[in-house]
Amino acid sequence: MALGEFDLIAKFFKRPVRRAALGVGDDCALLQVTPGMQLAVSSDMLVEGRHFLSTVDPARLGHKSLAVNLSDLGACGARPLAFTLALSLPKADPAFLEGFARGLLALADEHGIELVGGDTTAGPLNICITVFGEVPAGQALLRSGARAGDDLWVSHPVGGGIGDARLALEVFRGQVSLEGRDFDAARRAMELPTPRVALGQALRGLAHSAIDLSDGLLGDLGHVLRASGVGVRIDADALPRSPVLASQPRALQLECGLSGGDDYELLFAAPPARRGEVLAAAQALGVGVARIGELQSEPGVRLVDGEGRPLRGDFPSFDHFLSA
Amino acid sequence: MALGEFDLIAKFFKRPVRRAALGVGDDCALLQVTPGMQLAVSSDMLVEGRHFLSTVDPARLGHKSLAVNLSDLGACGARPLAFTLALSLPKADPAFLEGFARGLLALADEHGIELVGGDTTAGPLNICITVFGEVPAGQALLRSGARAGDDLWVSHPVGGGIGDARLALEVFRGQVSLEGRDFDAARRAMELPTPRVALGQALRGLAHSAIDLSDGLLGDLGHVLRASGVGVRIDADALPRSPVLASQPRALQLECGLSGGDDYELLFAAPPARRGEVLAAAQALGVGVARIGELQSEPGVRLVDGEGRPLRGDFPSFDHFLSA
Repeated sequence: MALGEFDLIAKFFKRPVRRAALGVGDDCALLQVTPGMQLAVSSDMLVEGRHFLSTVDPARLGHKSLAVNLSDLGACGARPLAFTLALSLPKADPAFLEGFARGLLALADEHGIELVGGDTTAGPLNICITVFGEVPAGQALLRSGARAGDDLWVSHPVGGGIGDARLALEVFRGQVSLEGRDFDAARRAMELPTPRVALGQALRGLAHSAIDLSDGLLGDLGHVLRASGVGVRIDADALPRSPVLASQPRALQLECGLSGGDDYELLFAAPPARRGEVLAAAQALGVGVARIGELQSEPGVRLVDGEGRPLRGDFPSFDHFLSA
Repeated sequence: MALGEFDLIAKFFKRPVRRAALGVGDDCALLQVTPGMQLAVSSDMLVEGRHFLSTVDPARLGHKSLAVNLSDLGACGARPLAFTLALSLPKADPAFLEGFARGLLALADEHGIELVGGDTTAGPLNICITVFGEVPAGQALLRSGARAGDDLWVSHPVGGGIGDARLALEVFRGQVSLEGRDFDAARRAMELPTPRVALGQALRGLAHSAIDLSDGLLGDLGHVLRASGVGVRIDADALPRSPVLASQPRALQLECGLSGGDDYELLFAAPPARRGEVLAAAQALGVGVARIGELQSEPGVRLVDGEGRPLRGDFPSFDHFLSA
């Protein structure tokens, strides 16, 4: 791809640069960070077969590649500024690149951010995006801020829930069968996640801690518990579930909701005194939020049902998290 | 690698964080940019078989992965601040990771910078680093600043030259044979490039334009010529050459020096009135600099020998650049 890579970058990805002092095409991109703000940075890499299937629509892949990175900014409460893209491609396929760039740049436009630099190379398909955001110094939402007594909340699409991306994966794996419309909805959840960027910013000063759900609720929650030195009681019946997931067997619902992954919703801790403000902030942004448990001083995860009865062993991967 | 990835990151890459407000292990890294400075950002991706051989020493690979990124900061005249690492690995091989981290972090220490975040995933070996630096607003060295009448300079190791990395590649390709010591020297040039970070900063306010040599002198120079709207006369005999390269046939010397790639030296343009200062700055830093030509208002590349005679056609890939 040696020389052609420059043409490729220019053709599909080069656009007028507004905020950045210097965009794609010099050795470095130059960014201006507002005085008093900290720069928030996150990198995510997407690999075929692990993060997406070879059959995915390129525009959806472009969307998701940026969405999973924006989701990290949302979890910090940062406002997105710009991103870089490093792309390894087996061949310079114009149809793929056109679709990928379209999906990617549409989401970038939605958030008012620009592609400011990157790299293109020949190799197995691999997408590495680094996003930049800014957050007032000292106000970022961290994993380490949760306190015993806080409510545990999870965001979700209005009328939907978490776990649908995992449900779609189970269909691709041949473990679950869904009818056309239901499969489309689940697949959309997997391929077109909505990063909760505005919600993250609204939660600054309101939530004590936040993380985005990429590896499954229990796994990601574990990072918060360790960083904050707390435990948790989760009401499994309070997990928000889409109608499609709610029609599945209970064990599958729990598996998808609690250890599914690829949700890109925010899991956050906020004091009970701020419940009304949390609900109002989410409602103003058209995002659902569900209160699913309570942070506690005793370490560990206590999973209960709506009546408060322990749920241990009701779904396959829970023991793994308990012992981790 | 799902859960194990966190352990891996912790084991090999997590270190006490000094400058960054928040290091590896939250959703985002938080960086403080000095007021009045612009943030310089660059991403480079390294793919096995294209950017390195599977047989490379992991410590050298770690060094080179960061070096090629630091080289971009050098070309902008930026001071390095921090970097992120996204790593795709076929398997979590502790021997590889230990060596890779050792080489990577040694170079990071040399430049006083920290690994502030990243991602680890299962997949074909792929290394994506994003570096951050800062440069006084408006003072970055750009590709677009060269002017007719400027000297064209290239940096090089003292007692060495450019083109050795390509010479080593020709040995690996079986096109050239070198004896043990000579091969070691050329291979070192390919695997352990020295990013010209201090020189880049010294050239701020002195050079009009700079670029780092990653894709070969003529190819990279082409970016400067297009961005600056100028042409160039190059004295091929003034190209700095190591003793090993200088002992090769002339056509191979020109091929390696002019279109070799992987040099990670700075190619820069500065006015003739500043020659003394350029030489003094380089000498103070223990870096060689050679004056290899002159920027001219007439577009195009004019390659001449030490007596000013045109050299067109003397090495295989030159016509390609002339027509590009």
